[in-house]
Amino acid sequence: MPWPANVTVQPGAIVIDNSFTVAVAGAGAKDERVKFATERIAERLARQTGIPIPSHFVPLTHNPTLAIIVESRDHKAPQRLGDDERYSLVASNGQIRISADAPLGALRGIETFLQLVRQNTAPGMGAPALPGFSVPAVSIHDEPRFPWRGLSLDVSRHFIPVDAVKRTIDGLSAVKMNVFHWHLSDDQGFRIESKRYPRLQQYGSDGEFYTQAEVRDILAYARDRGVRVVPEFDIPGHATSWLVGYPSLGTGTGPYHIVTGHGILTNLMDPTKESTYRFLNGFIGEMARLFPDEYFHIGGDEVNPTEWNTNPRIQRFMRRHHLADAHALQAYFNKRLLKIVTSHGKHMEGWDEILHPDLPKSIVIQSWRGQDSLAQAASEGYRGILSAGYYLDLMQSAEQHYAVDPLKTPPNGKRPTVSGPVVRIEDLTPEQKKLILGGEAAMWEELATPENLDSRLWPRTAAIAERLWSPESITDVSSMYRRLYVTNQWLEWLGLTQRSALEQMRQRLAGTYPAKPLDEFSSVLEPVKGYSRHAERYQTSTPLNRLVDATAPESNSAREFRDAVDKYLQAPHTAETATALQTELGQWLDVVEAVRPSLQQNSLLLEDNALADSLATLCHAGQEAISYLAGGRTAPADWKQQRSLAVTEAAKPKADLLVQIAPGIQKLVDAVRTAQQ
Amino acid sequence: MPWPANVTVQPGAIVIDNSFTVAVAGAGAKDERVKFATERIAERLARQTGIPIPSHFVPLTHNPTLAIIVESRDHKAPQRLGDDERYSLVASNGQIRISADAPLGALRGIETFLQLVRQNTAPGMGAPALPGFSVPAVSIHDEPRFPWRGLSLDVSRHFIPVDAVKRTIDGLSAVKMNVFHWHLSDDQGFRIESKRYPRLQQYGSDGEFYTQAEVRDILAYARDRGVRVVPEFDIPGHATSWLVGYPSLGTGTGPYHIVTGHGILTNLMDPTKESTYRFLNGFIGEMARLFPDEYFHIGGDEVNPTEWNTNPRIQRFMRRHHLADAHALQAYFNKRLLKIVTSHGKHMEGWDEILHPDLPKSIVIQSWRGQDSLAQAASEGYRGILSAGYYLDLMQSAEQHYAVDPLKTPPNGKRPTVSGPVVRIEDLTPEQKKLILGGEAAMWEELATPENLDSRLWPRTAAIAERLWSPESITDVSSMYRRLYVTNQWLEWLGLTQRSALEQMRQRLAGTYPAKPLDEFSSVLEPVKGYSRHAERYQTSTPLNRLVDATAPESNSAREFRDAVDKYLQAPHTAETATALQTELGQWLDVVEAVRPSLQQNSLLLEDNALADSLATLCHAGQEAISYLAGGRTAPADWKQQRSLAVTEAAKPKADLLVQIAPGIQKLVDAVRTAQQ
Repeated sequence: MPWPANVTVQPGAIVIDNSFTVAVAGAGAKDERVKFATERIAERLARQTGIPIPSHFVPLTHNPTLAIIVESRDHKAPQRLGDDERYSLVASNGQIRISADAPLGALRGIETFLQLVRQNTAPGMGAPALPGFSVPAVSIHDEPRFPWRGLSLDVSRHFIPVDAVKRTIDGLSAVKMNVFHWHLSDDQGFRIESKRYPRLQQYGSDGEFYTQAEVRDILAYARDRGVRVVPEFDIPGHATSWLVGYPSLGTGTGPYHIVTGHGILTNLMDPTKESTYRFLNGFIGEMARLFPDEYFHIGGDEVNPTEWNTNPRIQRFMRRHHLADAHALQAYFNKRLLKIVTSHGKHMEGWDEILHPDLPKSIVIQSWRGQDSLAQAASEGYRGILSAGYYLDLMQSAEQHYAVDPLKTPPNGKRPTVSGPVVRIEDLTPEQKKLILGGEAAMWEELATPENLDSRLWPRTAAIAERLWSPESITDVSSMYRRLYVTNQWLEWLGLTQRSALEQMRQRLAGTYPAKPLDEFSSVLEPVKGYSRHAERYQTSTPLNRLVDATAPESNSAREFRDAVDKYLQAPHTAETATALQTELGQWLDVVEAVRPSLQQNSLLLEDNALADSLATLCHAGQEAISYLAGGRTAPADWKQQRSLAVTEAAKPKADLLVQIAPGIQKLVDAVRTAQQ
Repeated sequence: MPWPANVTVQPGAIVIDNSFTVAVAGAGAKDERVKFATERIAERLARQTGIPIPSHFVPLTHNPTLAIIVESRDHKAPQRLGDDERYSLVASNGQIRISADAPLGALRGIETFLQLVRQNTAPGMGAPALPGFSVPAVSIHDEPRFPWRGLSLDVSRHFIPVDAVKRTIDGLSAVKMNVFHWHLSDDQGFRIESKRYPRLQQYGSDGEFYTQAEVRDILAYARDRGVRVVPEFDIPGHATSWLVGYPSLGTGTGPYHIVTGHGILTNLMDPTKESTYRFLNGFIGEMARLFPDEYFHIGGDEVNPTEWNTNPRIQRFMRRHHLADAHALQAYFNKRLLKIVTSHGKHMEGWDEILHPDLPKSIVIQSWRGQDSLAQAASEGYRGILSAGYYLDLMQSAEQHYAVDPLKTPPNGKRPTVSGPVVRIEDLTPEQKKLILGGEAAMWEELATPENLDSRLWPRTAAIAERLWSPESITDVSSMYRRLYVTNQWLEWLGLTQRSALEQMRQRLAGTYPAKPLDEFSSVLEPVKGYSRHAERYQTSTPLNRLVDATAPESNSAREFRDAVDKYLQAPHTAETATALQTELGQWLDVVEAVRPSLQQNSLLLEDNALADSLATLCHAGQEAISYLAGGRTAPADWKQQRSLAVTEAAKPKADLLVQIAPGIQKLVDAVRTAQQ
């Protein structure tokens, strides 16, 4: 995962044991990224297999287990948009051979190779049933569908330390994403050291920020893994943290304070003062030298124009410059900004709102609004990437994200307000479609911390990665989930903590009680969706140590239950599947009983008793429904209405969590026939 | 844990939330160890509670949540044997106050404080039932029973990387151990950089060793946590890795190779050459400057004298020096060594074998032989520490280790050969008893890797730590296990991986199958005990990725089952407990069924099918026995014999694992009455 562009599986396998050797050949073998990536292979194999595999390099002529041939080392650092990522991987006759024209292709091929290593199984994929590991014989020719495949990570609302950033980059590289978009400033914190304007981080953060040495370390780390790093400094809105140390940048009078709540603020930079641009020129110059990527993201989203519209000085400025409204003023600001960004050798990138006819076609639009917005931009000749539909903090399922294609209008997509006529993405010409560069998953950190970050990113980001890499035709959801399960485990060998961290958080909640019942209880729950948890009461200092924080975004058990119900309801209802469903519901009732003492005793879990009640209600309703269905019996006239009411009530959020077997139960209830009244 | 010398629990509690503040006062506040330890508190609290607790220092007069008063800063680095570790901790009236005469006491008190933080519970320990955390009101006056409480860690057979060493030191400090004994060389690898004799690590290891910079980093890390580091260089036996690069040090002719198997070798250093002592003087001088501790461990164990006894040159030397036998020659070697070690300002430490009347009383004996050996040494005026009974690699239970007291003859202890009359430890005078300084847990790495190391160390080391710190009278095993469970979880917040790493290893074994059944299956298993797994076929390159490697040394489920059986068999047999036991056995039968597909399909698990058979056999036998017992019925005459045979067979090791419910089942079978034949 992501599924390759072309793949053929053959009989046979190549054994991976401690006789493993590697050869690297071709001009690209000297590329540092190739060198480091091949040096990491043995250690990663050792972790994946538990076999002490030494890092053993041999010449190509010595029949290595893994041969890597990289034709050219053309691509110099910094990595650029569109750099060649093609590779082929052929595993046959006792050898795995990765061929690539360029270094990035080799890196992608190595990840594919590592993903192919699996334990020998009894009947085997042609592999010996001997205890050990192997790679199946396979022929892969692979290349990405989109050249821009990334993750946008907010490190302002909650600071994400260096080690968590690094393992995130490991994960991105593993699923062949190639952009780490670093949202470094927002109202809640300025997260990078400026040597030129040190009050940015000193006053604009709680002391948690990346030093420039740390940034350089991360940049090298990402470069070695074939991941570009695009920094974002969100202006002129979302910029309170700038104003704390440098209030004269603001439209208001200050003093400003770091924002501890969430939501869209009214604080704005002042686009009318020359001093603002002098400051931005100094700062952007400093950052442009630090970050090697060609692209520089200036945010530009969610500008609440109140301050501009009510400030007489600003209003005078707007009249003088014939700026009709706040959007025109922001376009003026962006034009000035563009000049600065360009003068420092960068292309400017921003969110939908920066789109304005006055700006040149060299900018790139990141769309939180959707395909329509991208289509509009592309029709006007602007390049863009999609983030709408890929917001990981909204707690949607992998399936939902997987269905979002940058080049397809979403079936039920809301149509946000886009100025000008709406152009559908499907209506673009092939040339215009090429302006859609790809997409980025986006993780906003209002309700996530370094502790549970991985669980919010993974495995769902892998499904998005597949959407952006694999051919458009790869859309089978069952296949995706089957592979996502395996990929999720594989990612853990990189040190990602999506499973282990949540387990430990639940252990903390369970206190002196065993955590296993809480684990099982949590496995049928999901955090509430969308923005329903982003309420006023959340502050950056709010402890995120509740069950909702320790519960994965998506319940596999609930999904499997829903699928099992669907299968069951496709007549004929077999006694066997009925029994299986009854057993499962019985087991969850056991879980309710087992988890109850810890819910009743631990103060942080008291709020979750209502969820246990709901789970029990749902199990009982489900069991009743199945016994009507399995017995071919008719329920009393008011049974369905009463149960539906109960299910509806049980399906409501409690303690910011949902019992996610509710939809499956509702289907069972709906399927029962009732006596006519 | 360890249980304090004096503790009184009072009603009430002190809330721990993000208003938490610390004050540090007294002359000792300036001590670096105190300073760093107090700086770590907020982060550790944040991890333990999930609350973003800032590091907020206030003056003592500002009513801090935690007040730490350290009278003196007398104890300079390096930390010395016997440094004052006493502290008191009084939590009352909204404040926790730690008082200590010296810095180490403050460090110990801080660990006690952190261990006391727990989630508020519904009835509460006087704490509010509000969601959150608190420390119970308590008054503690604490000091250690023994001044030397440590862990000896072999890093030769399998190299243990820096991060694993550091988290081990974290764990030691958390359970108030104060010595990290670093077994740095053995036949299988020389694990530290010598700048003077670089071929030691270059030829004597596979490239995995600690650089001196890394060693200094670890030494500072340990010092900051109140842990002394005692290096061990094991000579003249266990020294093959020295001889690979410097064969002239050996008695034989070489060439020598790093040992990849295990067991006691015949390779020995040559104690007859002056060049050997010149080399050792150079090397020990270098190491003595690197390691600040007063003690220097020269090993000296398991000298197989074959080479000495058969070498004419050595024999001539022995006759010339009136050395009667190999032990006398080793004593000669040790005397020369003592002079070198002493000249570099260190006290010499070694294993039992170095004890010889020719050596002065300044040496310290570490005993793998037992209390008799220690008693013998003490009766002759030598100081000693106990390691016999604390070998973690033998896979004994916490209970077994907990029962071993340095000042008590073990009830069933084998009496190893000790030269001279046997003195019982109980017969020592009070003054002689003071020569018993404490003990060290010991972890040999033949069958452990960095991956599962933590699971071999924890939580059992905590039980040993309690034995060495707490008063002699603290011996309640149920209480120990109850507290060990909580302590084990608490240790995970330090980053220890005893739970998570084994889970991930089992996930690897389960492959594409769900790991949960394998987790549950593993939970009733234990690795085989003692040296039965140390067979010839194990090499340092043998993959340790089997189920035995992914199974904890001790099964809590099996212990709880055994206890439940004992309770049940204490007449009268209630129907309720019979049902509970039947249910449990039924659940394990379910586990057998659930785990079977993964055992049958995954090549690394094929060998474990026999264990699943055994578990099923045991469950059936247990269920039959209970139904006889619960029904008050008599079994057929041959039933008991047949079932006992089956249980005996099922109890035998398979795939280096034991089904540990077997003893409980045997008790049930034994309790059944049979008809007279």
